[in-house]
Amino acid sequence: MTDFASLSLRYSGDRLSVLDQTLLPHKEEWAECDTIDTFIDLIQRLSIRGAPLIGVSSSLFLATLCNNGIDKPAFLDAAERVKAARPTAVNLMNNIASLLQVAAQDNWRQAVINEAERLYREDVELCDKMAAHGAELVNKGDRILTHCNTGGLATVGVGTALGVIAKSASLGKQVSVWVDETRPLLQGGRLTAWECAKLGIPYQLICDNMAAMLMQQGKVDKIFVGSDRIATNGDFANKIGTYSLAVLAQYHKVPFYVVAPQTTVDPECASGQHIPIEMRHDDEVKGVNTSQGRVCWAPEDAETFNPAFDVTPAELVSGWVLDTGVYRSADIANNNWWLG
Amino acid sequence: MTDFASLSLRYSGDRLSVLDQTLLPHKEEWAECDTIDTFIDLIQRLSIRGAPLIGVSSSLFLATLCNNGIDKPAFLDAAERVKAARPTAVNLMNNIASLLQVAAQDNWRQAVINEAERLYREDVELCDKMAAHGAELVNKGDRILTHCNTGGLATVGVGTALGVIAKSASLGKQVSVWVDETRPLLQGGRLTAWECAKLGIPYQLICDNMAAMLMQQGKVDKIFVGSDRIATNGDFANKIGTYSLAVLAQYHKVPFYVVAPQTTVDPECASGQHIPIEMRHDDEVKGVNTSQGRVCWAPEDAETFNPAFDVTPAELVSGWVLDTGVYRSADIANNNWWLG
Repeated sequence: MTDFASLSLRYSGDRLSVLDQTLLPHKEEWAECDTIDTFIDLIQRLSIRGAPLIGVSSSLFLATLCNNGIDKPAFLDAAERVKAARPTAVNLMNNIASLLQVAAQDNWRQAVINEAERLYREDVELCDKMAAHGAELVNKGDRILTHCNTGGLATVGVGTALGVIAKSASLGKQVSVWVDETRPLLQGGRLTAWECAKLGIPYQLICDNMAAMLMQQGKVDKIFVGSDRIATNGDFANKIGTYSLAVLAQYHKVPFYVVAPQTTVDPECASGQHIPIEMRHDDEVKGVNTSQGRVCWAPEDAETFNPAFDVTPAELVSGWVLDTGVYRSADIANNNWWLG
Repeated sequence: MTDFASLSLRYSGDRLSVLDQTLLPHKEEWAECDTIDTFIDLIQRLSIRGAPLIGVSSSLFLATLCNNGIDKPAFLDAAERVKAARPTAVNLMNNIASLLQVAAQDNWRQAVINEAERLYREDVELCDKMAAHGAELVNKGDRILTHCNTGGLATVGVGTALGVIAKSASLGKQVSVWVDETRPLLQGGRLTAWECAKLGIPYQLICDNMAAMLMQQGKVDKIFVGSDRIATNGDFANKIGTYSLAVLAQYHKVPFYVVAPQTTVDPECASGQHIPIEMRHDDEVKGVNTSQGRVCWAPEDAETFNPAFDVTPAELVSGWVLDTGVYRSADIANNNWWLG
């Protein structure tokens, strides 16, 4: 059987385990994905997160079910339930759709396994291509601001936005990183900081509301962010706080790039207004869950507004860095521009 | 002897106690200000915070020393130490300067006591005037966004920005409030949420990076913020994150008002670039201290960038709401505009 091991995922045909990202950076614990309930819970608790990682791990999880001899109705039910676990991530929808397509074949279990393993290899390759394209935009000494986590904890390769940063560093460009902590779930403070340290890239952690002051002081050369879904007109959804950065970047004339595989472009989605935005629980805003425990600092009965994502309109984007190339505003008018 | 009791301060001539704001909203505990070390520690730990409250409580603390018969050299030393406790707040500097001026008189202890008590009464009155002026800018049903804490926990009166909101509510304008949590110290999530609930004003708590999405969706009618120091050209310093809101407000055409007593204007400060910005400890960004304990979610050795304040240039301000009136850009060109 095939074995895969990435920064955050281990697969051996009939078994899948994932690094429980809710416990980082203080504990590195692997969670066994042995039942469908466990797996969906890991996604919904954000132990597994990042649009590409959610898509690939879901596919490999379904592959383990096939390797363990699941019957067809149970497989279709599992696929449906996994697909519904996070509504905004288009990768998840696409990957499950690919599996369902090959599952119509006679030797369906092996076909699903092959397809899931192909999706893993594809993600690694897509990351490498994005990183190479993106790194061409980076100058020596650039101080790059990024949001959320988009590296080897969000994909099974080097990542999207953080992959560009890692590639630039590996090419000797001596970049440094401003890491947005990314409230409410602190993927920047918990995960990107940890990954930068692992990669040996100098970084400074900031609260999200400090990015504007850094731009005002001319201390941000470029911004790279990831995306959970890109509309065909170039609008895109990403972690809450991205839109704020895009507006601030335009005001301060800081180039603002989105980095994602072309599989993130949803051909059925004409503009950002059609992207569903997941609303999450009050508790996330009223406090924080960490590997050191939960604290709540707000009044117990406080009401909150807690969207998981926001939508950035295309006019605020300097460039779309896909595996198929770097696109500018003028390219977006072309049919199927994202295919290169 | 005179007795004063505000939401966060109790004074009875020879004794001063303050509500320890680091323990809110879960615990309401009063701290006795019995020594100079205790008092300065309360300021530096942000148990006492908010520029006007820092100024008035410092003055009343020095008054308690006088009521307890301190000698002149010790008084001058105490005044110097209190003045140095927070470098950005101009109220503190001004109030201590007033006390030092009257301390040159013969009956200096009583003169200091009288002046400190006058400063208390003045703050209450200034708040009432700002609130009345600001409320005139508010329409029925306005959804107002505010940052940090600027109410009865930041002043000894109804507050500055939150005072405007409270006054508007009391006039039947049916306002609701978007409360920025205000990382890193969460004055919004801990204090403003608690105060809104006490005042019976409907509010929803948000993470700072969500304000842009609310503006994008047309859900913010006005923004009111406080200030720690206003330059004579209208630039002003306030809690980190304020400048970000100002840029976002201009992009979304949302009116953006700063509310402060005219004592916040520093006649010696010609523009924002002369306002010193206090840099604070990494620990604040790497985690949070709450009444439920401290958690750190970032790598232990993470470096951070942690300015306590930022500076918003006058061109992003729709109006300056002072006790002496509401001023617009055109007014700022006049000499001593802040005096009305």
